[in-house]
Amino acid sequence: MMASGSSGTSGSDQAVQVRARVILQQCLSAKLMIQPRTDTQEEQHVEIGRGLIVYICFLKGATDDMVERMVKTVLTACLSETETDKLVSVLDLPGDVLIIPQATLGGNLKGKRMQYHRNINKEDGLNLYSKFVQLCTLYMSQSVKCKEHHKVVEAGTYGNRQVFSTQTNGPYTHALEF
Amino acid sequence: MMASGSSGTSGSDQAVQVRARVILQQCLSAKLMIQPRTDTQEEQHVEIGRGLIVYICFLKGATDDMVERMVKTVLTACLSETETDKLVSVLDLPGDVLIIPQATLGGNLKGKRMQYHRNINKEDGLNLYSKFVQLCTLYMSQSVKCKEHHKVVEAGTYGNRQVFSTQTNGPYTHALEF
Repeated sequence: MMASGSSGTSGSDQAVQVRARVILQQCLSAKLMIQPRTDTQEEQHVEIGRGLIVYICFLKGATDDMVERMVKTVLTACLSETETDKLVSVLDLPGDVLIIPQATLGGNLKGKRMQYHRNINKEDGLNLYSKFVQLCTLYMSQSVKCKEHHKVVEAGTYGNRQVFSTQTNGPYTHALEF
Repeated sequence: MMASGSSGTSGSDQAVQVRARVILQQCLSAKLMIQPRTDTQEEQHVEIGRGLIVYICFLKGATDDMVERMVKTVLTACLSETETDKLVSVLDLPGDVLIIPQATLGGNLKGKRMQYHRNINKEDGLNLYSKFVQLCTLYMSQSVKCKEHHKVVEAGTYGNRQVFSTQTNGPYTHALEF
């Protein structure tokens, strides 16, 4: 279950355990900071064009072997609109992908404060996140269409503040649980 | 339950019924189209400064009397970072609020396609959305701090394509169910 605004829904925590949460949004472009400015270096960013923004959070119980299914689901779900408003996968669009680690998605509202007890520990979270990014990159590189059109997978730095901006013709926001 | 990437989690649909879904994101600024361009009129937009973006979707079973609690939860949850990284409510920030109707949040993944069987019908959805916007506007107008700092509630047009752009120092994305 997602964070609930009602104490009355706590019973459903006993339902099937959610181990990862993903929010997907379409974009025309997006820009994400991957390294803050330091004394010796300028801020570093990654940018994507038309494609999919993937916010991702792993919860306790998440395992290495679920990541492949997650990546396939995200890349093949028909959630990207073509110029003619047809819905296709981001691989078929073809579009870019921007992956943003977002531990806050594991939050559970307790009174007026969020609690993150269900989030996975940082080390395991980083490993799972890295595998997610690697597999996305691999599968996109295997797509002839994506390769031909020079589509890219970009990813935020795990644990960083995700400073970013985006433009969209309709975010078409979807939420997935795994 | 949110849309699940796994058929194995369908059992949890029998848990407590979710009647509304909200995604919250911090922003430094955001701009949303509320009226597309026509032959006689330019595109119309609303804009907010630092504050909260509220994506909202009502599902079957949602009722008028739950909206007040939803609005209070959204406006008083401590999900907005101050300049000193303290977490306060958007009313205490004080910040602006941008409400975006987002029926896609009711989606349930079936194979590679989203289904929206659980979404409320459009007429009821519009009524609940309108009430949500009205109450947000009312409660913000009752906040001395928001009034003093000329904070605003802006809202997208129900049923429209939500063309928008945003900038954030970290979206700090949270998901709520009601």
